[in-house]
Amino acid sequence: MSDRDLLMIPGPIELEPSVLAAMGEKQRGHLDGTFMKRFSRVLKRLRDVFHAPTGQPFVLAGSGTLAMELAAANLVQPGDAALVVNTGYFSDRMGFCLTRHGATVTHVRAAPGAAPSLDEVRKALAGGKYKVLTVTHVDTSTGVLAPVQEYAALAREAGVLSVVDGVCSVGAEALDMDGWGVDVALTGSQKALGAPPGLAVLMAGPRAMAAWKARTQPVRSLYLDFGEWLPIHEAYEAEKPSYFATPPVNLLSALDVSLGLILEEGMAARVARHVRMANAVRAAFKALGLSTLPVSEGLAAHTLSALYYPAGVDAALVKAVAAQGVTIAGGLHPELKTKYFRVGHMGAVSANDVLAVVSAVERALVASKVQVQPGVGVAAAEKALA
Amino acid sequence: MSDRDLLMIPGPIELEPSVLAAMGEKQRGHLDGTFMKRFSRVLKRLRDVFHAPTGQPFVLAGSGTLAMELAAANLVQPGDAALVVNTGYFSDRMGFCLTRHGATVTHVRAAPGAAPSLDEVRKALAGGKYKVLTVTHVDTSTGVLAPVQEYAALAREAGVLSVVDGVCSVGAEALDMDGWGVDVALTGSQKALGAPPGLAVLMAGPRAMAAWKARTQPVRSLYLDFGEWLPIHEAYEAEKPSYFATPPVNLLSALDVSLGLILEEGMAARVARHVRMANAVRAAFKALGLSTLPVSEGLAAHTLSALYYPAGVDAALVKAVAAQGVTIAGGLHPELKTKYFRVGHMGAVSANDVLAVVSAVERALVASKVQVQPGVGVAAAEKALA
Repeated sequence: MSDRDLLMIPGPIELEPSVLAAMGEKQRGHLDGTFMKRFSRVLKRLRDVFHAPTGQPFVLAGSGTLAMELAAANLVQPGDAALVVNTGYFSDRMGFCLTRHGATVTHVRAAPGAAPSLDEVRKALAGGKYKVLTVTHVDTSTGVLAPVQEYAALAREAGVLSVVDGVCSVGAEALDMDGWGVDVALTGSQKALGAPPGLAVLMAGPRAMAAWKARTQPVRSLYLDFGEWLPIHEAYEAEKPSYFATPPVNLLSALDVSLGLILEEGMAARVARHVRMANAVRAAFKALGLSTLPVSEGLAAHTLSALYYPAGVDAALVKAVAAQGVTIAGGLHPELKTKYFRVGHMGAVSANDVLAVVSAVERALVASKVQVQPGVGVAAAEKALA
Repeated sequence: MSDRDLLMIPGPIELEPSVLAAMGEKQRGHLDGTFMKRFSRVLKRLRDVFHAPTGQPFVLAGSGTLAMELAAANLVQPGDAALVVNTGYFSDRMGFCLTRHGATVTHVRAAPGAAPSLDEVRKALAGGKYKVLTVTHVDTSTGVLAPVQEYAALAREAGVLSVVDGVCSVGAEALDMDGWGVDVALTGSQKALGAPPGLAVLMAGPRAMAAWKARTQPVRSLYLDFGEWLPIHEAYEAEKPSYFATPPVNLLSALDVSLGLILEEGMAARVARHVRMANAVRAAFKALGLSTLPVSEGLAAHTLSALYYPAGVDAALVKAVAAQGVTIAGGLHPELKTKYFRVGHMGAVSANDVLAVVSAVERALVASKVQVQPGVGVAAAEKALA
């Protein structure tokens, strides 16, 4: 394995060199003037990325799962009911987070690769007295892109808060918190925000903050309590010294660089680039005879592709592709784990990367004696990119 | 302010260049072979640093506060009682963590700069039916070094689990978990472990793991549950792929480099170096007429010094020192905040650093019209270092 191998898993991802350079900079203190400016800018820039002009951002040392639990911990308390619109592994996980914080959880489930219909969600909402509805925007386990805008509208109609787990979407898929009436959206740093892993990122809209303020029971965790972080985030945004727990200075500096690049590209252009890359990947894999786990094109994410192994091929394909210099990922959904693989294509992903991963899979299939005509995948990708 | 300014706060600290280089390396995936080797080595190396051959290490994306709460979340449940040996701000915080997870908390307090006597702790232990005793090894707010070995022995005698918050001590102060019978010790990456901020590090001894296994109620947080992390840490230690939440790859790689340097130096030599540096700092500040917040030399930490401002000087001194090219920290203990300052001297700290900070404070005092004879501080430091 070479350090020049290409990392094409659904996070961590290939990063812009300037993001990595920020990681390796001289260590700064958490009250360093340059750092305070950067943290302030991170918070402001996140509002643009999430389309949440009135949102309150939170950025903590932690993983995407911590961001998920941060939403649960602050929005629910024992006695509350939550509805999980379930599209896979990570929807189940949101359910676990909600349960730990005392909520009674109901799931509206769909088969792997599908998403509950709007009717099913509407019915489910009518069947209980829910405080929150959660939805996984892109389930990293299945590559399913859920119709968040529509679900959020149903939640709003029902007077229920909507929480969007955007771990594999924010910074790449279309998301308009303000326009769609989404109350909380969250992600981890290592996905489409284009930074290394280690940051939990959450945006809380005004209704979510009001629900947190109206709690009658304390948040079950100190580290997860909005109340501990709110004054600190407000102070950093104003570039004023403040302290609760030491912020992960280097990661925040790297995120600042990445958010700068994201907004320089522009969110609309960035979403369009992800669509273009995803279409090229999918055209190529279709030409290679592979089928996607999402059951329809409209349900396929633009940040990763989940593809069934062709007949006669198993998880050894992931290693065979690695031998071609490209790292992809195996399956994650418990029921289907050994039957599919995943390719990430988000963040700084370029046409070069798409061609490299398509060609590596193509070569690995040929090496695995699968009947494919060498070159058809790459040709289809080139055509889609042209 | 220049990027060559010296960072002498009690964390984050100046880092070895090789540690920073690991931060800025090409992004690796969380199942990358090189990364799995590193994570495995981190876990093994932590046992050596903590002197915990039978300990179970946990390393999570988070801050030192998350490590504190990790201890609380897994060891107590509603109905349990905890005794906090309180030496300052961070002992209070441990109390808050324990409360959130359902424990009834009793504090044995001391005046700022002091630590409860062994008799006071013995009496307190006798006065209740405690499950855990917690102690802050070095309180970053006061610079007080608590007699952890003696407190842990009292806890053991009483059949109570001991938790050492070693956020400002592990990797620099003497700590022998196994020999002293300490059940849990924890820290953050940005202190004496010599890495950037962003990692919560905890070592649980066999009795602590048994207490966690004997719980009758679930841990109140998913992210904080040993049960979620244990199989993942065991798998990584065996260099086998596993997944719960994406580990902070870059920070763990940096920590691996730092732990390698720590063990190359040797823990005994490292502790001795910290004592030597602390003695030089203190000799210098004594010569400059400054008095320490810890009320006796035996209570003064070797990782930082907390010093009262001389008469006629206030927090402006911190800025005056910064103007001399060295960053130090203001006070943190709520009662005394404006009356003292703090100098960190841990990790890669060298004689050069000690002389630089002493001289910077000396020059700042002269500039602040305090009656000091230029050079006496530096001369005292040189003498102590010789």
